[in-house]
Amino acid sequence: MVDSNRGPESNVDVLIIGAGPAGLMAACWMAHCGVTTRIVDKRNAKIFCGQADGLQCRSLEIFDSLGFADRVWKEANHLIEICMWSPGDDGVIRRSDRIPDTIPGLSRFQQIVLHQGRIERFFLDNIKKLSNNSIRVERGVLPESLKIDEAKVGDNTAYPVTVTLRHLSEEEATPPQQISGSKIEDGIFRSNLMNEDDEEDWILKRASRGGACETVHAKYVIGCDGARSWTRRILGYELEGEATDFIWGVMDIIPITDFPDIRMRCAIHSAENGSLMVIPRENKMVRLYIQLKEVAPDATGRADRSKITPDLIFRAAQNILSPYKIDYEYCDWWTAYQIGQRVCTNFDAHQRVFLAGDAVHTHSPKAGQGMNVSMQDCYNLGWKVALVAKGIAKRSILGSYQSERRRVAQDLIDFDHRFSRLFSGRPAKDVMDAEGVSMEEFKDAFEKGNLFASGLSINYGASILVAKAGDAAEQGDGSIIAASAASQTTLDAFRKKQALATGLPIGMRFNSFKVLNQADARPWHFQERLKADGRFRIVLFAGDVLSAPQKARVDAFCRALDAPESFLHAATPPDAAIDSVIEVLTIHSSRRVDTELLREFPAVLHPFDEHTGWDYSKVFVDDMSYHEGFAEAYDKYGVDRARGCVVVVRPDQHVAWIGELEDFDELESYFKGCLVLPYGGVTGSSHMR
Amino acid sequence: MVDSNRGPESNVDVLIIGAGPAGLMAACWMAHCGVTTRIVDKRNAKIFCGQADGLQCRSLEIFDSLGFADRVWKEANHLIEICMWSPGDDGVIRRSDRIPDTIPGLSRFQQIVLHQGRIERFFLDNIKKLSNNSIRVERGVLPESLKIDEAKVGDNTAYPVTVTLRHLSEEEATPPQQISGSKIEDGIFRSNLMNEDDEEDWILKRASRGGACETVHAKYVIGCDGARSWTRRILGYELEGEATDFIWGVMDIIPITDFPDIRMRCAIHSAENGSLMVIPRENKMVRLYIQLKEVAPDATGRADRSKITPDLIFRAAQNILSPYKIDYEYCDWWTAYQIGQRVCTNFDAHQRVFLAGDAVHTHSPKAGQGMNVSMQDCYNLGWKVALVAKGIAKRSILGSYQSERRRVAQDLIDFDHRFSRLFSGRPAKDVMDAEGVSMEEFKDAFEKGNLFASGLSINYGASILVAKAGDAAEQGDGSIIAASAASQTTLDAFRKKQALATGLPIGMRFNSFKVLNQADARPWHFQERLKADGRFRIVLFAGDVLSAPQKARVDAFCRALDAPESFLHAATPPDAAIDSVIEVLTIHSSRRVDTELLREFPAVLHPFDEHTGWDYSKVFVDDMSYHEGFAEAYDKYGVDRARGCVVVVRPDQHVAWIGELEDFDELESYFKGCLVLPYGGVTGSSHMR
Repeated sequence: MVDSNRGPESNVDVLIIGAGPAGLMAACWMAHCGVTTRIVDKRNAKIFCGQADGLQCRSLEIFDSLGFADRVWKEANHLIEICMWSPGDDGVIRRSDRIPDTIPGLSRFQQIVLHQGRIERFFLDNIKKLSNNSIRVERGVLPESLKIDEAKVGDNTAYPVTVTLRHLSEEEATPPQQISGSKIEDGIFRSNLMNEDDEEDWILKRASRGGACETVHAKYVIGCDGARSWTRRILGYELEGEATDFIWGVMDIIPITDFPDIRMRCAIHSAENGSLMVIPRENKMVRLYIQLKEVAPDATGRADRSKITPDLIFRAAQNILSPYKIDYEYCDWWTAYQIGQRVCTNFDAHQRVFLAGDAVHTHSPKAGQGMNVSMQDCYNLGWKVALVAKGIAKRSILGSYQSERRRVAQDLIDFDHRFSRLFSGRPAKDVMDAEGVSMEEFKDAFEKGNLFASGLSINYGASILVAKAGDAAEQGDGSIIAASAASQTTLDAFRKKQALATGLPIGMRFNSFKVLNQADARPWHFQERLKADGRFRIVLFAGDVLSAPQKARVDAFCRALDAPESFLHAATPPDAAIDSVIEVLTIHSSRRVDTELLREFPAVLHPFDEHTGWDYSKVFVDDMSYHEGFAEAYDKYGVDRARGCVVVVRPDQHVAWIGELEDFDELESYFKGCLVLPYGGVTGSSHMR
Repeated sequence: MVDSNRGPESNVDVLIIGAGPAGLMAACWMAHCGVTTRIVDKRNAKIFCGQADGLQCRSLEIFDSLGFADRVWKEANHLIEICMWSPGDDGVIRRSDRIPDTIPGLSRFQQIVLHQGRIERFFLDNIKKLSNNSIRVERGVLPESLKIDEAKVGDNTAYPVTVTLRHLSEEEATPPQQISGSKIEDGIFRSNLMNEDDEEDWILKRASRGGACETVHAKYVIGCDGARSWTRRILGYELEGEATDFIWGVMDIIPITDFPDIRMRCAIHSAENGSLMVIPRENKMVRLYIQLKEVAPDATGRADRSKITPDLIFRAAQNILSPYKIDYEYCDWWTAYQIGQRVCTNFDAHQRVFLAGDAVHTHSPKAGQGMNVSMQDCYNLGWKVALVAKGIAKRSILGSYQSERRRVAQDLIDFDHRFSRLFSGRPAKDVMDAEGVSMEEFKDAFEKGNLFASGLSINYGASILVAKAGDAAEQGDGSIIAASAASQTTLDAFRKKQALATGLPIGMRFNSFKVLNQADARPWHFQERLKADGRFRIVLFAGDVLSAPQKARVDAFCRALDAPESFLHAATPPDAAIDSVIEVLTIHSSRRVDTELLREFPAVLHPFDEHTGWDYSKVFVDDMSYHEGFAEAYDKYGVDRARGCVVVVRPDQHVAWIGELEDFDELESYFKGCLVLPYGGVTGSSHMR
């Protein structure tokens, strides 16, 4: 059908607007879950230099779940140590402290730095492979209108969001970024110091002159279109917050210097010349974040961008680093920005249109948070939308996106607000200097901030997806969401359940320790087995299966799980493998060499397939390995080696539920709360023929 | 110039015949060293299933030096444990032993299994990237004649080897491998049970009918064209050795079985039905090596291939595994072979034409040695040819290829001979059963063989490339080669030098332990810094540089190294970076936080470049890291923490020379022995402007 104004019409399950890291993460989930998806971006080219590039441990764990952490890890520069520099009594800067960049023991990864363009490349390769090339970024495509048919938002089969898109030719969509006569691109081009987005204006002007139109009906739209989000504006939502007077410059250079810590991450406070952060990068480059004390916002709150040049920024860096010398021949990229913290009032509209990333939170880039938090927004959102679109999960889980992620954004904004002021302030001359910033206070904030900045302190509140004690509104962003299975009266019960696995706090991501595959003795970081494929997982800590009473408990649990009427069968289409919606993984604590997969473990834990035999990939043991791994998983997870427990893990690796092997009914309640469970009464296929 | 018979003529530095793993390894070196190279193969397609696929630790270390070990490691199945099964008193098989597959502590890698086609894919990607797509495998190309102009073999500028090549079209070069009416390819197609090579016959028949000719003049030719090597035959060389009566079948299947160790590597001796080896593979597959007791060679020494079918092979496997059940639906590949051990009399002709891989040694495949030893032949040969072709090294180093690698082949043949007989023999019923094989003896041979099979016991003999004590002919293959710097009178001196680094035996590969980069505290496995780029390396164990006397020793060594007349400058073209032929790497033992790169270490250890500043990648410290690495490198290398020592490492990571910091003249002698050193008298560029 072709409408003369709105062009051809089509349906799609998910439409993603914006192909930066947040949009690509959303597309990645859809590719992994097999949901029909389109992703459009008004720009016609990927990013080739500059922009965000610090990667938290948590982002690396997420990349690993998607299958490309190894590529990132190999190419990136690794950040190991932070050196703090501050003025001595003589006013000359000297190294005052060293701390590890990533708190030891926190994750199997450390923080690293790699150019955003490479990350986007890895996403694109992954999406291409997992979607069989059916999801491709459509560039030079602008959304022009968006309407939500409110009458249909509750209907799972409907496509209630209608978006018109305009397609520009490659030439039409290529703005001229080069400044005439300069080899370096204009670094202010996309900075928040611009009153308008020149690029957007330019593209819009072109768009008004031509380009083909089409109309798309989508079940869900995800707006990942950046700080000036078109999607946010058309929904009428506002960013709330404030700007500061602090203006910072950024440069990516290959430094020629005698400063001894140029390959360390450094936080440098000079006595009078402002502050500097050093972030060593790949390919000999170093990123410098440089406070510009000579530039101040005017009465309208905006800085005069014409004054800001690479020379001005670099002179400021030289002054801060004095008496050390620094120079460069090669500059890869530069920009400047005004520090401010803002968060959007709403993260969705009717749980049909969602906003993520810079579209809903902005802050200063120094902590390397921006790209990480944006990607993690969509790591939280993507599987929820995918499972609801596929009819596996209930629509009510979608409310948890705002409650979980807007709360993270609020915490981030608070952190950035405090940290920016400490970093941009003049160091105190002595204890009587009340206007100055205490270097002890700064170091303390830095160390505390480091845990936050790792992305590993995220703790989602109670909801139908997180069965834990406490008040859901208090633990979330304040919005009212579908209630958790826990009522106030079961609080005590849940506190007890948490005690079954003290190292796996409900709401936090499932930590990773090494376990061995029972069938082939290969060591795995357990998190490697929690892939981002949209499946919930039940982790059965089976305890000591060689003890007869414990074996009886395990057998009883498995009988309930494999009963025709159980939620496991009710969740699984009759023609699908028994592990296609919920996968059961086992970690036992007996000696590996005394146990055998086919002897000690019921079939549902290693399902039989008539074409390929037993599944050897699901049962693990917490035992010593020959080469790596130290039989400490039960200890670190805080689980009793004899009795074990049962843990539910969400598709995004967050711990959702903990119980005893006897708490089968409560386990079933959890899944009845969030999944549709349309099948059932089918006998399992987990028996050898 | 076009000769009517021989087609157009051209020159090339290196012509490689055969694009299997050995030929690709040779091409890889040429790509990494920037040597003009062609590689041709008569077959028109890569291998898509079956064939060799076990990878030793050493092969993984080599892949890491080339840059793609991570891809192999990620896709492969990892072999952790070997289970031995033998008959009990009742004649029923049971697990009699477990041993680790890779001896713990031997390498940072463990043995793995991955299909040869994937390995070739990684080689091709690597060659393409490193050669800027200038080296590409030319398929469907047959060599037809080869002549060596003996008058010119000593002339470095000459192209003394003339080869004519015939180019077939894709259609002409595609033999019909499918057996009509069968889904599985004919597994005997390329087996050594064939009297003739049907494929080769087929291609030759096509070639006789057409295809364009050309004539190539090469400085060096490397023949990697397999067990029926055309290159070997045209040189008139013979494989010496013998065949056995043992016939084995091979199948790659997805097993459906109740045998408990099907995901372990297993060596199974049945009481009467023969032996079986289980090698678990990637993608749920398992390779079975199955002794075929029902098939015996005839009077001519050849087995009747028509009797050998997948059914016959699999029935044999079922009998050996009884009482356990095994079945399959999916078979990926199968073949059969007759065990034999042969090694070629010569590995080169005039040190202008070289033979490598299956062309010069054949043996049984069960130890997973074939592909590994073949690749390692060319890992030994490639850099030598490249450096001589580039005028960096003297031609006399080329003799070491045969002395080093033919000796390895001889050792391999001996090992395989003993091992095959133990594995193919009937297990002894009791101690009086003299005809049977003792299972204790078998286990003992297996454990000893495991070290050999890891590829890490290779110890090259004395030569101009290996400055160590002992008799060169005895340590090599018996051929006479250019003498080492060591004469009989300096034996005692060299024994003392080895004592300076007891963990780095001269002639063996440089073992790897973790050290930290001084400038950014990042932990590295030191071997990761020994990349395959054709550079020799001097590893300066600088000792405790915070002690004044030791600092003076380091300064004196560096002054000698950086003097205009030193071998380092004499080896380096005036317009090239000082580290382009010989790279100096430093590991010191002082505390990292008490030392600074620019303060304690002379410029030659971290050379200055006027465009990019100091080199931060060359100085390391043996100190504790925050996250990994335990300050044990000096201990494990057996080097004195206070005084250190100096070690020369060949481009293939083998230890070449050890001395004190004061042994500068001997160090210079080593390089004068093997390198051309055409420059000199140029002052270093390692000073800050």
